[in-house]
Amino acid sequence: MQKIVLTGAAGKLGSQLRGPLAGMAAQLVSTDILDSAGDLAANESWVTADLADRAAMQDMIDGADMVVHFGAIGDEGTFEQILGPNIIGAYNVWEAARLTGVKRIIYASSIHAVGMYPKTQAITPATPHRPDGFYGVAKCFAEDIAGMYWEKAGIEAVCLRIYSCTPEPMNARALGSWLSYGDLVRLVTASITTPITGFTVAYGVSNNDRCPVDNSAAAFLGYKPQDNAEAWAEEILARDPQADPSDLGQLAHGGPFASAPINSSGLSAKFLVNPPD
Amino acid sequence: MQKIVLTGAAGKLGSQLRGPLAGMAAQLVSTDILDSAGDLAANESWVTADLADRAAMQDMIDGADMVVHFGAIGDEGTFEQILGPNIIGAYNVWEAARLTGVKRIIYASSIHAVGMYPKTQAITPATPHRPDGFYGVAKCFAEDIAGMYWEKAGIEAVCLRIYSCTPEPMNARALGSWLSYGDLVRLVTASITTPITGFTVAYGVSNNDRCPVDNSAAAFLGYKPQDNAEAWAEEILARDPQADPSDLGQLAHGGPFASAPINSSGLSAKFLVNPPD
Amino acid sequence: MQKIVLTGAAGKLGSQLRGPLAGMAAQLVSTDILDSAGDLAANESWVTADLADRAAMQDMIDGADMVVHFGAIGDEGTFEQILGPNIIGAYNVWEAARLTGVKRIIYASSIHAVGMYPKTQAITPATPHRPDGFYGVAKCFAEDIAGMYWEKAGIEAVCLRIYSCTPEPMNARALGSWLSYGDLVRLVTASITTPITGFTVAYGVSNNDRCPVDNSAAAFLGYKPQDNAEAWAEEILARDPQADPSDLGQLAHGGPFASAPINSSGLSAKFLVNPPD
Amino acid sequence: MQKIVLTGAAGKLGSQLRGPLAGMAAQLVSTDILDSAGDLAANESWVTADLADRAAMQDMIDGADMVVHFGAIGDEGTFEQILGPNIIGAYNVWEAARLTGVKRIIYASSIHAVGMYPKTQAITPATPHRPDGFYGVAKCFAEDIAGMYWEKAGIEAVCLRIYSCTPEPMNARALGSWLSYGDLVRLVTASITTPITGFTVAYGVSNNDRCPVDNSAAAFLGYKPQDNAEAWAEEILARDPQADPSDLGQLAHGGPFASAPINSSGLSAKFLVNPPD
Amino acid sequence: MQKIVLTGAAGKLGSQLRGPLAGMAAQLVSTDILDSAGDLAANESWVTADLADRAAMQDMIDGADMVVHFGAIGDEGTFEQILGPNIIGAYNVWEAARLTGVKRIIYASSIHAVGMYPKTQAITPATPHRPDGFYGVAKCFAEDIAGMYWEKAGIEAVCLRIYSCTPEPMNARALGSWLSYGDLVRLVTASITTPITGFTVAYGVSNNDRCPVDNSAAAFLGYKPQDNAEAWAEEILARDPQADPSDLGQLAHGGPFASAPINSSGLSAKFLVNPPD
Amino acid sequence: MQKIVLTGAAGKLGSQLRGPLAGMAAQLVSTDILDSAGDLAANESWVTADLADRAAMQDMIDGADMVVHFGAIGDEGTFEQILGPNIIGAYNVWEAARLTGVKRIIYASSIHAVGMYPKTQAITPATPHRPDGFYGVAKCFAEDIAGMYWEKAGIEAVCLRIYSCTPEPMNARALGSWLSYGDLVRLVTASITTPITGFTVAYGVSNNDRCPVDNSAAAFLGYKPQDNAEAWAEEILARDPQADPSDLGQLAHGGPFASAPINSSGLSAKFLVNPPD
Repeated sequence: MQKIVLTGAAGKLGSQLRGPLAGMAAQLVSTDILDSAGDLAANESWVTADLADRAAMQDMIDGADMVVHFGAIGDEGTFEQILGPNIIGAYNVWEAARLTGVKRIIYASSIHAVGMYPKTQAITPATPHRPDGFYGVAKCFAEDIAGMYWEKAGIEAVCLRIYSCTPEPMNARALGSWLSYGDLVRLVTASITTPITGFTVAYGVSNNDRCPVDNSAAAFLGYKPQDNAEAWAEEILARDPQADPSDLGQLAHGGPFASAPINSSGLSAKFLVNPPD
Repeated sequence: MQKIVLTGAAGKLGSQLRGPLAGMAAQLVSTDILDSAGDLAANESWVTADLADRAAMQDMIDGADMVVHFGAIGDEGTFEQILGPNIIGAYNVWEAARLTGVKRIIYASSIHAVGMYPKTQAITPATPHRPDGFYGVAKCFAEDIAGMYWEKAGIEAVCLRIYSCTPEPMNARALGSWLSYGDLVRLVTASITTPITGFTVAYGVSNNDRCPVDNSAAAFLGYKPQDNAEAWAEEILARDPQADPSDLGQLAHGGPFASAPINSSGLSAKFLVNPPD
Repeated sequence: MQKIVLTGAAGKLGSQLRGPLAGMAAQLVSTDILDSAGDLAANESWVTADLADRAAMQDMIDGADMVVHFGAIGDEGTFEQILGPNIIGAYNVWEAARLTGVKRIIYASSIHAVGMYPKTQAITPATPHRPDGFYGVAKCFAEDIAGMYWEKAGIEAVCLRIYSCTPEPMNARALGSWLSYGDLVRLVTASITTPITGFTVAYGVSNNDRCPVDNSAAAFLGYKPQDNAEAWAEEILARDPQADPSDLGQLAHGGPFASAPINSSGLSAKFLVNPPD
Repeated sequence: MQKIVLTGAAGKLGSQLRGPLAGMAAQLVSTDILDSAGDLAANESWVTADLADRAAMQDMIDGADMVVHFGAIGDEGTFEQILGPNIIGAYNVWEAARLTGVKRIIYASSIHAVGMYPKTQAITPATPHRPDGFYGVAKCFAEDIAGMYWEKAGIEAVCLRIYSCTPEPMNARALGSWLSYGDLVRLVTASITTPITGFTVAYGVSNNDRCPVDNSAAAFLGYKPQDNAEAWAEEILARDPQADPSDLGQLAHGGPFASAPINSSGLSAKFLVNPPD
Repeated sequence: MQKIVLTGAAGKLGSQLRGPLAGMAAQLVSTDILDSAGDLAANESWVTADLADRAAMQDMIDGADMVVHFGAIGDEGTFEQILGPNIIGAYNVWEAARLTGVKRIIYASSIHAVGMYPKTQAITPATPHRPDGFYGVAKCFAEDIAGMYWEKAGIEAVCLRIYSCTPEPMNARALGSWLSYGDLVRLVTASITTPITGFTVAYGVSNNDRCPVDNSAAAFLGYKPQDNAEAWAEEILARDPQADPSDLGQLAHGGPFASAPINSSGLSAKFLVNPPD
Repeated sequence: MQKIVLTGAAGKLGSQLRGPLAGMAAQLVSTDILDSAGDLAANESWVTADLADRAAMQDMIDGADMVVHFGAIGDEGTFEQILGPNIIGAYNVWEAARLTGVKRIIYASSIHAVGMYPKTQAITPATPHRPDGFYGVAKCFAEDIAGMYWEKAGIEAVCLRIYSCTPEPMNARALGSWLSYGDLVRLVTASITTPITGFTVAYGVSNNDRCPVDNSAAAFLGYKPQDNAEAWAEEILARDPQADPSDLGQLAHGGPFASAPINSSGLSAKFLVNPPD
C-alpha cells in the first residue's frame, strides 16, 4: 500500500495506531487538530488540521489508499460541540475520499450508536441504530454516510463500534465492554488487510468472558481478540459498589451515556480521544 | 389542544396542512423561511423564520402542545445545502421542544431514508436506514434524534416516511408510491389524535393497489388511506416508456434519488417542499 | 356436531355465546359456578359446577366434540384467587378432554398474556409471552398446556387472546382494543368451523381503524371482524383526558393491568367475566 | 408489447389465459404438446411442441417480450415423468429467453414448492422451499433457475405459487386455497403490467376469508383478488367429512400431495394442467 | 453479600452448590423438604421446610440478597405432584422475595421448557416456550413469573435451562446435553457475580463438542464452561443402540420426556433433584 | 455399522475419505465412473458405475447403512453436463436409498447453493438458496430432494455445503473459505457418528480466522475444525493482487462462479472432484 491517512492521531486511540499503521504502508500521514506528540516514524508525516476544513482534508487525503478515521470529539457533548468535528468532519472525510479515489475507510464508530439497548440484549452488527446522545447520533450519521458512499460511490467502509478502549478495564461494566489497546490494533489491522469489506459494521471489544456483543456476523474480517478483562474481575467486583439495574446508566449498553441528560458535556473525561491537554 | 406549530407552512405539503391543523387547536402558528401565501385562518398566525435560527424556533414553539415539522429543503441537494435546514433545523426543533415542554412532534421523514432497498423488497416501519443521498441521510439523522429524545426526554414522535406526495400520480413509479393530498391530511391527523404514539415510524402512501410498503406494524395510528393511484394506471402505463430493471433509479424504492450521483442538486424539482418561488 | 360444552356460560362473554353455540350442535351443555340466567335453548342443558372440580368437569365433557372454555376469573386478582379457576381449572378442562376424546378446545386467552409489550409494537400470534399480572400468567400457563396437549395428545386448540370485549368501546385505549360482541361470536364460530386448527393463537379484536395487533398469521381461521370502534372516536377523544405516554398503563398493550401493583385485585371490574352478582 | 408466448396453452389454466393475453400484445404465440382446442384469436398463433425440445422453444420465443410459462405436467408423478417437461422444460424456457433477449417470465410455480409446512403456519413470499413431492421439487428447481437468471442475466421473473385453481372450490381445504379463474387472470395480468418485478414470488390465491398465505410482501405487484370461496362454505362444510388433523394431507399446505407416498402418480387428476384428453 | 438462600439444598444439584455458595456470602441458608445430609459449612444454616408453605419461605428469605431456587420435584410427574412444589412453590419464592426486598433470583429452569423442539433446531435464550410435559409447563410458568416480577417489581432473575446434569454423561443424547457439576457451579457463580442481569435466560450445558444450544445471546453473564462430554463419546457410541430418528424421545431436545405419555410419573429417576430417599 | 457406500470415490475429495470410511464400517463400497486409483483397503470393494444408472446404484447401495454421496461433476458446467450426474444422479441415490432402507445420506452440497450472497453477509445453515450457476442449482435440487425424503420417507440427510477444499489455501478468498482435507474428514466423520441428524445443513469450512459462515446452528453435529488458513495469510496477501469489491467474483460467497457467464464450463479446474484424467 502506498499511503494511509490517520485522523485523530493525537488522541488516546489514534496514538496507539500510529506505529502499527506506519508499518503497513509506504507512507503514513497522521493528522489532528493538535500538534504531534512524540517522535514521528521514518515514513510518517504530520498535518495539524481541523476536520471541519474540507480543503485541508482533501489535500491531505489525496493519493491515499485508505483512511483510518479516528478524529472526532471523543465524548458526549452539546450538539454545538459535536456538529463540527463529528458530523461535518465525517462528511468531509468521505467526500474527500470520493473525490480523490480512496478505496476504503476504517471508521471509529462507537457502542453509543446503539447505546440505549439494555445489555441483557445481545447486539450484533445488524442491530439498528439506537443512539444514547449526540455523540451516538453523530456516529449513526457517519455510519449512514458510510453505507451511502459504499452503495453509490463504491467506497468500502468498516465501521468499528468501539466499546471501552482503555489501558485496563476500569469498572464492572468494562468486564464486558473492555477493548485493550492490543486488540484495538488487531481490529484495525484486520479491517485493513481483509481483501473485501464492502460496508461492514463490527464491535470493538476484547475477548472478555462477559462480552455483551456478538461479532460473528463480521467474522470474515478475521478479527481475533486476545485479551480478556476477566483477569481484573475479582479486584473490580470487590471494589465497585453493587450494581443497580434500575439505573439505565448501568443497564444499558451505553453505560453512563444512556442515563445522562441531553446536552450535557464532559460526561466521561476518561473516554476522550482528543483531550484538550 | 391549545397550540400547534407547523413548520414548512409555505411548502407544497405544508400548505395542504394549514387548514386542517387550524381546525384542531385553539391556535395554529405557521412558519416558513418564506412569507405566507394566501389568507390566514382566524386562529392562525404566521412567523417568517429560518429553521437554523434556534432562538426563533424556541420562541415560536414555546407553549405548543405539538409541532408538525415539515420544514426542510424538499429535494436532494449538496451536503452544504442540506446541512442547515434539514440537519441543524431538525435538532433545533427537537431541542426547542424539549426546553419548552412540547408533548409530540409529527415529522415529515421520507422514503429516501430507506431509498436504496429494491422495491421488490417490502419495507416496514422497522426497516433499518439505507439512505439514497444527503436528503435521505438527513431524514435518518432526524429519526435518530427523534428516537433519542423519546427515550431520554419523553417527547413522542411520529416519523412519516412520505413517498410521492403530489396532486396526481405522475409516473409509473407513483402507481405504487403516490400519497394523495387527502391521505396526507388523514395521516397527519391520525398522528395527532392517536392517544399514545411513543416513537413511531409509518409510511406516507395512499391505498394504492401497487403499494410497495407494509404499514401494518403502525396500524395502531389509525391511518386509513382512501385514495388509489390505480385510477391513473391505464393512462400512465400507456404513456410511460417501458421500465428498465437494470436502472437502480427504477428498481429502488427511492427512485431517481437512488441512481443520482452524490452531491447533485435540483434532482427532482417536482418534489420540492419549499420551492424557491 | 353432537355436543359442545361451554364453560363460563354465566359470564358476560359466555352469555353472548350460548345462543350461537346452541345453533351449532345437537346438544349444548352450558356450565358455570353460578346458576343460569335467562331461559335455556331447547337443546341446552345447564350444569352448575366449579372448574376446580375435575370429576365434575370430566362427567360434563364426556361425549363432547369441542369445548369452548371461557370459564375463569375474568380480572386481575391475587395469585390465590387466580390459582383455582384459572390455572387448575384450565388443567382440568384439558385433562378431561384428553380422557374423553374431545377433538378441539376454543380457549378464552387474553391480551394480558402479552400485556407488557408497548402498544407501539405490533404483536402477532407468534409474539412470545410477556404477561402483565397473575391473570396474564395464568393465560400463558393455559396456552402452554394447550400447545403441549396438541403435540402430545393431538387435541386441537384455538387460543383467543381477547382484548376489550364490551358492548361499546369505553375509553381511548378501546379505540384500538375493542372487541364487539358480534365479532366475538364471529371469532368463536370461525374457530369452531375451520376444518383444521392444530394449535393456533389469534387476537380477539374488532376491525378497528386503530387496531394494534396483526392477526394475519391466523388468517386461515377465516375470522373477519365487522365492527369498528372508530364510530365512537370523536366522542371518546373529546371526553377522555389527554394520554400520558410515561404511564405504562397507557403505553402498554395490557393497559391498566400493566401498571397495577402485583397481587392487587378487583383491578377493572368492567372486565369481569363472572361478576359475583 | 409486441409478442407474448404462452406455454401450456391447452391446459386448464393456460386456456383461461389465452383470451386475456391476446389482448395485451400485438402477437400471442400459444404452445402446448397438444393441439389447440377452440378458435384462435385474430392475433394468436399456435405451435404444437414439446417443452423438452429446446430448439423448438428457442424458435418460438425469439422476439418475445415476455413468456408466460404454464406448461408442465400439472400433477404429482414419478420423477421420470416430471423430469422432462417440468425440469428440463423450465431450463429450456429460461435459456431460450436468455439467448433471445426476453425481458420477463411469468411462471406457474405452485404451493407444492412449500407444501410440507403445516397450514397453521402462515407462509409468505420469503418462505424457503419445503416441497411435498417431485412436482414440488421441480417447482423449487424452476424458482432457483429464475432467481439465478435474474441475478446473472437480468431476466425478470414472477413465480406464482398457485394454490387450488378450479372453477369452484371443491372441498374444505379449498375454502382457504381456492384461486378462481378470474383471479388467475388478474394475477397474471398484474405480473405483466407492473413496471418492475425483478425476481418476485407471490401466491396465487383468491380473496378467501380463510386464505392461509400472506402475500403482502409482494403487494407492489398490484394483484387484488376479488373472489371468495366463503360463498361455498356452508355447502362444503355440511358435505365434507370432519377433518382429521393427524392426517398430514389435511394439516399441510400441500394437502393430499403432502401425505402421498413418494413416486406415486395420478395423485389428483383434477389438478392436471394438461390432461391427456 | 450478606445472605444467600438456597432451596432444594438436599437435591443432587443443590448439594453441589452448598459449598461454593457458602463461600460467596456472609451467611448461607440452605433449605429442603428433607433434612440436611452431611456437615454444614461454618456460615451455613439449614431449614427443613415445604416450598408450598409461603410463610416459612418468607421467614427464611427475609434479609437475603439473592435466592438460588433449585427446589422442586426434579422429574416429570402428574400435574397433582407438580402443582405444589413446582408451581405454587415458585410463586411463593418470588412473592416472598418481593415482600422482603431480594435483589435477584437464580432459578433452576430446564430444557424441558422447550423440550418439544427437534434437536436439529438450535435453540437460543430467546426461543419461546414449547414444554414437553407438566414438569416443563411448570418451568415455563416460573419463567413467566420471573419476567413479570422483573418488569413490575424490579427483581432480577437468571433462569437457567439446565440440560443433563450428572456426574458423567450417561448416554448418546448426553454427548450434547451434559452439564458437569463443575460447570453447574460456574454457571450459578457467574449468574450471581454478574453486575446486572435483568431478566435473563441461559442454557445449562457444558462445553460439549455436540452442544445443541446457542448461549451466545447470554454471553454477558460470563459463563465459560470447561468440561466436554466428548471424552466419553467413543465408549458411549460403542455401547448405545443405534438412534432412531422416528422416536421423538431421541429427536427432540427434551429426550424421553418428549415421547412420554401425559400424566406419567417417575419418568427418569436419574434426573430427580429431590429423590424421596 | 455393516456397510457404507462412497460415491465419487475417485475424486479429489472422495479419495481423501476412502481410508477413514473404511475404518468406520465392516464393509466399504467405493464407486466412481472412473476406475479406482491406488490400493483398496482390506474391507473395501470398488464398483465402476455411472450415477445416472439407477439400477447400478440400487444394486450397490442395497444393504448399506449410510451413503456418503460425493459423486458429481465438481465444477460449473453447461446444464447438459450437469443434468445427468448432478441432478439425475442425486435422485438415483435417494430413490435407491429409499428402496433399500438406507438410514442416512451424507451429501457433498456446496457453497454454490448460496453463492450469490455477498460475503459481507454471514450465512448460516438456514440461509435460503441463492445459487450462482447450474452447479449450484443442482446442489439446491439435491438439498430439496434430501429434505423431502426426510419428511416423507424418514431418510436422514446431512448436506455439507463445502467451500474451498484443497490441500492448501490457494488465494485470498480461501483465507476465509478453505476446508483442509483433515477437517473434511472430521466433518464427514461427525456427520456419520452423530446419533440423530434428521435433515441438517452445515458448512464445510476450516477454523479459519476469516471464516465467513456461521455453523453454530449445526453445532450438535460435533464438527470441530482444527486447521486455519491464517498460517498462509501473509504469503497470500503479499502475492495476490489487491481485491476489487466491484467484482462480484470477489464480493460474493461463490467467488468466480458468481461472476461467470451462464452456461460456461471448465470454470475452475482446481475444484474438480472427478477430473477427466
